[in-house]
Amino acid sequence: MTSVNEVLKDNDKVKINYQDEIIALVRSKSSPKVVKDKLSEYHASDIADVIEVCTLKERELIYRILDMQSLADVFEYLENASELLEEIDIQKAARILELVDADDAVDILKDADPKMRKAWLSLMNKEHLKTINVFYSYEEDEIGSRMSTNFVTLYCNLSIKEAMTSIIKQAKSHDNISNIFVLDENGVYYGTISLNELIIARENDELLDIISTSYPYVYSDEKIDDCIENLKDYSEKSIPVLSDENKVLGVITAQDLIEVVDDEMGEDYAKLAGLTAEEDLKEPIFESVRKRLPWLVLLLGLGLVVSSVVGLFEAVVSQLTMIICFQSLILDMSGNVGTQSLAVTIRVLMDAQLTGKKQLSLILKEMKVGLLNGLLLGSLSFVGIGLYIALFKHSPAVTAFSISACIGTALLLAMVISSLVGTIIPIVFKKIGVDPAVASGPLITTVNDLVAVVTYYGLTWIFIIDIMHITC
Amino acid sequence: MTSVNEVLKDNDKVKINYQDEIIALVRSKSSPKVVKDKLSEYHASDIADVIEVCTLKERELIYRILDMQSLADVFEYLENASELLEEIDIQKAARILELVDADDAVDILKDADPKMRKAWLSLMNKEHLKTINVFYSYEEDEIGSRMSTNFVTLYCNLSIKEAMTSIIKQAKSHDNISNIFVLDENGVYYGTISLNELIIARENDELLDIISTSYPYVYSDEKIDDCIENLKDYSEKSIPVLSDENKVLGVITAQDLIEVVDDEMGEDYAKLAGLTAEEDLKEPIFESVRKRLPWLVLLLGLGLVVSSVVGLFEAVVSQLTMIICFQSLILDMSGNVGTQSLAVTIRVLMDAQLTGKKQLSLILKEMKVGLLNGLLLGSLSFVGIGLYIALFKHSPAVTAFSISACIGTALLLAMVISSLVGTIIPIVFKKIGVDPAVASGPLITTVNDLVAVVTYYGLTWIFIIDIMHITC
Repeated sequence: MTSVNEVLKDNDKVKINYQDEIIALVRSKSSPKVVKDKLSEYHASDIADVIEVCTLKERELIYRILDMQSLADVFEYLENASELLEEIDIQKAARILELVDADDAVDILKDADPKMRKAWLSLMNKEHLKTINVFYSYEEDEIGSRMSTNFVTLYCNLSIKEAMTSIIKQAKSHDNISNIFVLDENGVYYGTISLNELIIARENDELLDIISTSYPYVYSDEKIDDCIENLKDYSEKSIPVLSDENKVLGVITAQDLIEVVDDEMGEDYAKLAGLTAEEDLKEPIFESVRKRLPWLVLLLGLGLVVSSVVGLFEAVVSQLTMIICFQSLILDMSGNVGTQSLAVTIRVLMDAQLTGKKQLSLILKEMKVGLLNGLLLGSLSFVGIGLYIALFKHSPAVTAFSISACIGTALLLAMVISSLVGTIIPIVFKKIGVDPAVASGPLITTVNDLVAVVTYYGLTWIFIIDIMHITC
Repeated sequence: MTSVNEVLKDNDKVKINYQDEIIALVRSKSSPKVVKDKLSEYHASDIADVIEVCTLKERELIYRILDMQSLADVFEYLENASELLEEIDIQKAARILELVDADDAVDILKDADPKMRKAWLSLMNKEHLKTINVFYSYEEDEIGSRMSTNFVTLYCNLSIKEAMTSIIKQAKSHDNISNIFVLDENGVYYGTISLNELIIARENDELLDIISTSYPYVYSDEKIDDCIENLKDYSEKSIPVLSDENKVLGVITAQDLIEVVDDEMGEDYAKLAGLTAEEDLKEPIFESVRKRLPWLVLLLGLGLVVSSVVGLFEAVVSQLTMIICFQSLILDMSGNVGTQSLAVTIRVLMDAQLTGKKQLSLILKEMKVGLLNGLLLGSLSFVGIGLYIALFKHSPAVTAFSISACIGTALLLAMVISSLVGTIIPIVFKKIGVDPAVASGPLITTVNDLVAVVTYYGLTWIFIIDIMHITC
């Protein structure tokens, strides 16, 4: 991104760093009028980035110089907005909260010091408070909590010319005008017009003819998890969010969706790694410990179960110590295969509403992949480890290849079963309404460890010690 | 998404399933004119979903009934577009390829049978072929490969009225008109106007006054990895993509960005799980095997290294068989902690351009988190496993707690070192230009296993066998 990082190549490209320009501007001794005119040229996101590295004095200059709407735009991009808002005169802060998009205002208010929040709320006008209360009422996993209130509407009985006039009027305070939502005489959502269609329509066309009545929409209390895939598939600039009474409450814009997708996938990614939520660099250490500890404690407990099972085979190990060398190999491999199946299954579950038939085909596919990989790696281990034992441990060839046969077979079995477990457990969790990404990890690890240990030591016991009578 | 799934609640909400409606429409015996008029009401994404479940005969009806532009819109949403395009008359198919957005056309052509591709290309007009060649020239990791050519431009010397007339003209064939890109007399990118500003401007305002010259832009050959975070931060409807000569080649729309974010995070998610790329349900089994095998083979090799090291401690194990029970516990825990650190580090590396100081603070933070978690779990293990051995293995208390002290200490050390390794290795890989998400996993697992094994058996050897003289 050339606006922020320098372009390295030496050609015609202009090397512009907007943030440096803004800092220089703020630090210049130019008159407020000059700074204001120049500052208003920059993108609110760039100004926000600069504010985060400014001194308090420089920030105060920016607060004083920018007009209220520009300041509100900047506050929508600030990460620590509620902290910085406290630096601003309380009256002005309340006005900013009225001007930022309602979902951002709610985020700022939620993060704020309770005293400040109360003070700000008491100074905001009633109309805005009503909107903000609506947002407060949504759970974080409901799509309503992510919508924007920046949208324009039309009544369906207007002429093309009246419609255009109305849109021009609304464009002054709303900049999401690409899609226009049409209401019937009772204010109920009727359909959508794209601004393009309206612009190219002739004056004596009928407005009704350019309304798309089968345009996608979503209800404000739908779960994000349930509707996000469809919202993504439509690939629209904005999709209306309706109340239970089918009134338009807001829109989900493509920009809102980017955030939602980013957050949802970040969460799944974190969960796959055994974190209860996504972390970032600025987070306090105890917060990070708290996010990681639950899974670790659970795994420690489950690890003890595996240890107890390994304990059952102490007698086998004491007769043939060499076999413990390869325990880690088999456990690691079965763990890796399980994680691969888990990751694939979770992504598939997230992407699609699976029918029973498709679920079965997914399970079968994972089994086949596990079987193929198991056959390949099992054979590789049989030959490789057999040679390794014969050469480096100086065992007779029969002993070496008997042991490596057990390892290869255990590997094959462990891999097939791990693929199965890694597929079935998340499907079952999904079915009983538990988040598969967070719950599957520990259980799969434990089940796979147990299977691998029992197969490996069991096989060695029966085949090598009982049948072949090989001991060390 | 109510347009697809049924709404479950029993209230005023309208239960509409657009796809069922479309299928019923296609299967009805209505005249082509009626079906066409009704079909044009639906969203191209919904029609695409229906096409994927239709019979060939029904598809042929849709191909025949829809006009070319609508058909092109639908093809932009089809997953197996190149396959379905073969069902269409070759002349008509070439025309569709001209009408779909150039980046989608390239995707369809890349997936297509080489013979068909050649035939289609030979029938397309030269202007379109030129655009398509531009897209073919981008690598998959360059932002140019993701841009859309659906955008509108203006020359900067126009009056407001002339500008508006030009936009109305362009709106007929382009529907991304929210941001208008302004060119100087040589066609070089000059700045951006938002359609809002243009609409609310008065006829005698100056066009120059509403041009934002510090609007973000991106060069077509920038790496997606390098610019995606900035593109996301701007949260804009569209951002211009420039050539080396600063001409506007295309735009990255918010919808394009959703796809990019989804793909990028999907890839990282897959890599974290040890897959070389994201998989889906429809993929052939051998393709899945190929994606998973490399990591598994590598891990098998590295696992053998760990096995060799465990082999060095055979003597310790033969003297105190009980200790092998807890090997899996310590290896699993160190693996889990390493994965957590890896996941956090990769996300942080992806989100931010880290300075040396910030990298150090990340490493320190991970060490502290590892130390705290290690202390907690180490103590827990010391007490818990001590009691477990004393009660279930009927060992004397001294033996039990000596062993559990070794386990606790080994756990503490392994967790601290795993946190470190899980942080430093991805940072180093990033620095030397290797993708940290794909390369870190195997190395971290192996290093952590080695550290854990050496610490655990080493401690047992020195403390229990050499100092305390405890054997089984």
